Amino acid sequence: MNLPDPIKNFIHYFSKLPSIGPRQATRLSFYLINSGKSEIDGIKKSLEELEKMSVCEKCFFVFLPKNGSEKICEICASDKRDHGLIAVIEKETDLISLENTNKFNGVYFIIGNLQKNGTLGMEQKTRLSKLKNTIETELDGKANEIILAINPTTYGDFNAAVLAKELKSHAKKITRLGRGIPTGGEIEFADEETLGNAIERRI
Amino acid sequence: MNLPDPIKNFIHYFSKLPSIGPRQATRLSFYLINSGKSEIDGIKKSLEELEKMSVCEKCFFVFLPKNGSEKICEICASDKRDHGLIAVIEKETDLISLENTNKFNGVYFIIGNLQKNGTLGMEQKTRLSKLKNTIETELDGKANEIILAINPTTYGDFNAAVLAKELKSHAKKITRLGRGIPTGGEIEFADEETLGNAIERRI
Repeated sequence: MNLPDPIKNFIHYFSKLPSIGPRQATRLSFYLINSGKSEIDGIKKSLEELEKMSVCEKCFFVFLPKNGSEKICEICASDKRDHGLIAVIEKETDLISLENTNKFNGVYFIIGNLQKNGTLGMEQKTRLSKLKNTIETELDGKANEIILAINPTTYGDFNAAVLAKELKSHAKKITRLGRGIPTGGEIEFADEETLGNAIERRI
Repeated sequence: MNLPDPIKNFIHYFSKLPSIGPRQATRLSFYLINSGKSEIDGIKKSLEELEKMSVCEKCFFVFLPKNGSEKICEICASDKRDHGLIAVIEKETDLISLENTNKFNGVYFIIGNLQKNGTLGMEQKTRLSKLKNTIETELDGKANEIILAINPTTYGDFNAAVLAKELKSHAKKITRLGRGIPTGGEIEFADEETLGNAIERRI
């Protein structure tokens, strides 16, 4: 069955979005047509608003420029944060999670989604040069500490090792997030690796 | 962490969409901000296009009015279709699936997603009156055949029984889709219910 162009066009754009496939996009189109103009207008408006957001030139997090001309985000611009302590993270949502702990007063650096083959993509290489450059010009060549806040998975460990090697000469200390039993977790169900780490790093 | 208003607003609208939750909406916002203006503009454009679509007053399927004033879709308006043969379906995607078989030359009627408690919702009741009304005014009170093309699940069977009762006086014959082993399926892995149906309705 040949779908009308507006639906095909909608599916084309929406199925390009992460974790939305053509089937979900098709269902979304029917949902929106049935919802009517005011619902669609609300979404269009929210997209217009989104266009006001910028990406920080220093850490690559998103931010809303107050007067339209700032190039860096509130965290990177803040003099209350410790700029010598840098958490390297994969994605924006990791920043939100870490920030919500209220335990971190350093700054962030979003390296972007890491590949699974232990090599850095073009984007990662560009961002890494940017980070090194910031450390060289603003921190006299060495950050006090770089926390590689990468997921503690097999690939994450692999990638963290690659990043550690790359950043070794640009930090006095390179660390990763602590490992152990998550709060609320049960010893009985912890895997051996996690439990082993919890014994070694007991507090 | 307090997210900027444009992101909060975006999450508000996008997490209202079916099968998109607040987490996915958050990730989408970051994805779009990083993609930039042209990507967002493409999506906005596709939403504008979608607003041109209408919902058919007769069968509730979506369609693109050619001159802006039609109230019914191509299928309902076609004189090549058998208007006495009506397939009652739950949703638009079911229509596309049935239409793609090229085996159905009747018309459709979208009843909307059925509840799981065997009662018809307000929306379903309104649509059902509409269908009865169409049958009374255009088919002299009785359709030749109504196919209840509802999913052959427990709830689907239940709802089909409710609909069959409601429509009994408005059709000479009420049928459901045939059941058996799907093409490409293996007897070994067919459940007993399916296999039982396949034996009873052998061809």
